[in-house]
Amino acid sequence: MSGARPRVMILGGGFAGLFAAQRLARAPVDVVVYDRTNHHLFQPLLYQVATAALAAPDVASPIRRVLRRQKNATVLLDEATRIDPGAREVHFKKSGRQPYDHLIVATGARHTYFGHDEWEQHAPGLKTLEDAFNVRYRIISAFEEAERLGGGPEAAPWLRFVVVGAGPTGVELAGAIAEIARKTLTRDFRRFSPGSAEVILVEGGPRVLPAMVERLSDDAVSQLQRLGVEVLLDTKVTAVDARGVDIDGERIDARTVLWAAGNQASPLGRDLGSTDRAGRVNVRPTLEANDHDNVYVCGDLAHFEQDGAPVPGVAPAALQMGRHAADNIRRQVAGEKKRPFRYLDKGTLATIGRKKAVGRVAGLNLTGTLAWLGWLFVHLIYLVGFRNRAVVVFEWAYSYVTYQRSARVVVDAGGGVVDPRAPVPKSTEGTAARETT
Amino acid sequence: MSGARPRVMILGGGFAGLFAAQRLARAPVDVVVYDRTNHHLFQPLLYQVATAALAAPDVASPIRRVLRRQKNATVLLDEATRIDPGAREVHFKKSGRQPYDHLIVATGARHTYFGHDEWEQHAPGLKTLEDAFNVRYRIISAFEEAERLGGGPEAAPWLRFVVVGAGPTGVELAGAIAEIARKTLTRDFRRFSPGSAEVILVEGGPRVLPAMVERLSDDAVSQLQRLGVEVLLDTKVTAVDARGVDIDGERIDARTVLWAAGNQASPLGRDLGSTDRAGRVNVRPTLEANDHDNVYVCGDLAHFEQDGAPVPGVAPAALQMGRHAADNIRRQVAGEKKRPFRYLDKGTLATIGRKKAVGRVAGLNLTGTLAWLGWLFVHLIYLVGFRNRAVVVFEWAYSYVTYQRSARVVVDAGGGVVDPRAPVPKSTEGTAARETT
Repeated sequence: MSGARPRVMILGGGFAGLFAAQRLARAPVDVVVYDRTNHHLFQPLLYQVATAALAAPDVASPIRRVLRRQKNATVLLDEATRIDPGAREVHFKKSGRQPYDHLIVATGARHTYFGHDEWEQHAPGLKTLEDAFNVRYRIISAFEEAERLGGGPEAAPWLRFVVVGAGPTGVELAGAIAEIARKTLTRDFRRFSPGSAEVILVEGGPRVLPAMVERLSDDAVSQLQRLGVEVLLDTKVTAVDARGVDIDGERIDARTVLWAAGNQASPLGRDLGSTDRAGRVNVRPTLEANDHDNVYVCGDLAHFEQDGAPVPGVAPAALQMGRHAADNIRRQVAGEKKRPFRYLDKGTLATIGRKKAVGRVAGLNLTGTLAWLGWLFVHLIYLVGFRNRAVVVFEWAYSYVTYQRSARVVVDAGGGVVDPRAPVPKSTEGTAARETT
Repeated sequence: MSGARPRVMILGGGFAGLFAAQRLARAPVDVVVYDRTNHHLFQPLLYQVATAALAAPDVASPIRRVLRRQKNATVLLDEATRIDPGAREVHFKKSGRQPYDHLIVATGARHTYFGHDEWEQHAPGLKTLEDAFNVRYRIISAFEEAERLGGGPEAAPWLRFVVVGAGPTGVELAGAIAEIARKTLTRDFRRFSPGSAEVILVEGGPRVLPAMVERLSDDAVSQLQRLGVEVLLDTKVTAVDARGVDIDGERIDARTVLWAAGNQASPLGRDLGSTDRAGRVNVRPTLEANDHDNVYVCGDLAHFEQDGAPVPGVAPAALQMGRHAADNIRRQVAGEKKRPFRYLDKGTLATIGRKKAVGRVAGLNLTGTLAWLGWLFVHLIYLVGFRNRAVVVFEWAYSYVTYQRSARVVVDAGGGVVDPRAPVPKSTEGTAARETT
């Protein structure tokens, strides 16, 4: 990279980071994108990897490959540990201190357990590919365990699935698990009926999909119930362990508990001054951190107020922020005036299951098949890469016709059989010595 | 399962076990298939998962799903730890002791390090999906590390790949890595030229693909060399560590060493009496273990002599053995006489790269494009499941046209950045706390 050109450093290859990098393709700058994984992840479809409908490569593209034709962009695999805006440097796990002229921080968010981090080992969330493998492993091995135990009372806790949090991810997970039990697995077991599985969606607030209008929340509930999902509203989870959860003091015996409840912004935000309760960095209209010129914060890590409310942590917002930050950097380099960001809400859709979805697009409330088709369409459009689109279309068509899910493959610890509740997957070392029974 | 019908227990859901189970579909027996993974793995294509050409679900099908319509078959996820032919019982990790009337043992083989098990952590083999993820991770992260280090002498050991063993797997791995470097990644890096990567194939014997006729071995070597693979014959590996290998005392500095050298049969074989040097169980013409009536041994675990030579450990042999063992059990149950097994060699093909392969089919020696097309065709036919065939055809066509590999996605320890040489992937616990840089 020529040292003469200003160096734009982008932390995170999600929607915000990737679209910011692409927006700078023709700018007279050198772009360096750092990510701790080698792939851009299409998070809106991650639950389909978790529920075995899609394979990991269908929803993840190597960042390096997406940017391979952009000559002014370099992609590096490393993990930022600290931002030093004063020195205009970022500290990395392997690469040490690296300087920047302009910085875009788009390192997103993780789920939060509201101060009960010990719950996580029992109730994994869904943000990364590894999370998805973990969730997939737990769902599939729960049914396997029920069969091994010969059904009956001993197997019951393995056939009870609790999803905590009824935002889009929680609703999608609960709906997908119910469909797996009622449709996908019907013929697969000999010692119990998968249809007997219970799926319980627990929401602390008064309704599901709180970001949507009330009518759609009600629609979503009835669609979930038609799938056999039990929806518990205004219900708080008070304890989580390996054997189940307590809700408002009452016990639910469930070996599979999934967490879709809260977001906590990336810890890097703390290095950027004022943040909100969720750890999101308060940004100015230009998307620069309140306390630091030239440090742009985008996506789930940013707290941006518009019309009195924060812009939601959704992919379209991240994408728009990334592009806007890139534009402001271009303007800065060209000596022009930075412009304020404005989020354009194109609508929102959440899918519940086969021909089941709700959403609001262009001011219209959609529900059922129409919303579902809209959801499929929108998600295909934003999926990065032709190959992914083609394969995903095939997988979706295939599952639609056969009710099957093509990615029902799990790799557990050491390739061996372990307590399905142990963290997964583990080191491969163990595999070697053992036989492949 | 009705206790009245004889219970046929099958250990292992590979080619031998799965085809044995299917062959018993109409027999008056109850079939129980145990595997420690939930999937049947199409091992001949595993190297394509390792080299990012295919996703895991493309080459693995849930055993439970393959057998879902076979009413007399039950599939259980558990790991056999001991066989007690005297008591007609098998001991399992989770299910304890389980009885059988007829037993088919098809637990395959692992690679062997000839008494140097400590080499494995530095030079993984390729037998399971986890192995494939491990190999894929090492190959991809080696290039990533070379870029991070800015190319140059420091990066050189990361751009040197050593494959030990020139059987089909070794040849296919070496060829695929060379193609990745020369074709797939050409535009992807900014700080070094992937084409400069060295791929070294080390073989202890006098030729590659020793199972084939000499002429084809020579063809294979020249095809490998055209891909830029350095082939070292009659060369012994004397040491392996995290930084490279010693060959006949001379040092090769290479951060990525892959093992395709030897097979060691599943330890379960030891419970079945006389075995050969590789731990394979010596079987009678009926495929029963020499020392135990009613215990059939099939696939890579069996040592079956035919025309003075042992039948090779290849998929077609395993498949034929599995079916034959099932037939003999059917005959036994029907009070008929068991028949001797005879392996029908339909030929053998090994692919080296794009339009590069060698093989012998129906007495004809094939090489180049023709052999390659034959290889594609044969492997598609034996791939289990329509969906897999369709997707694999698409992936192959896509890579053929674009030179791309669609599964260049890796998940490393805790989703974070670690020494690429650390075992992978690890527990997911770590991920939670960290930001997604």
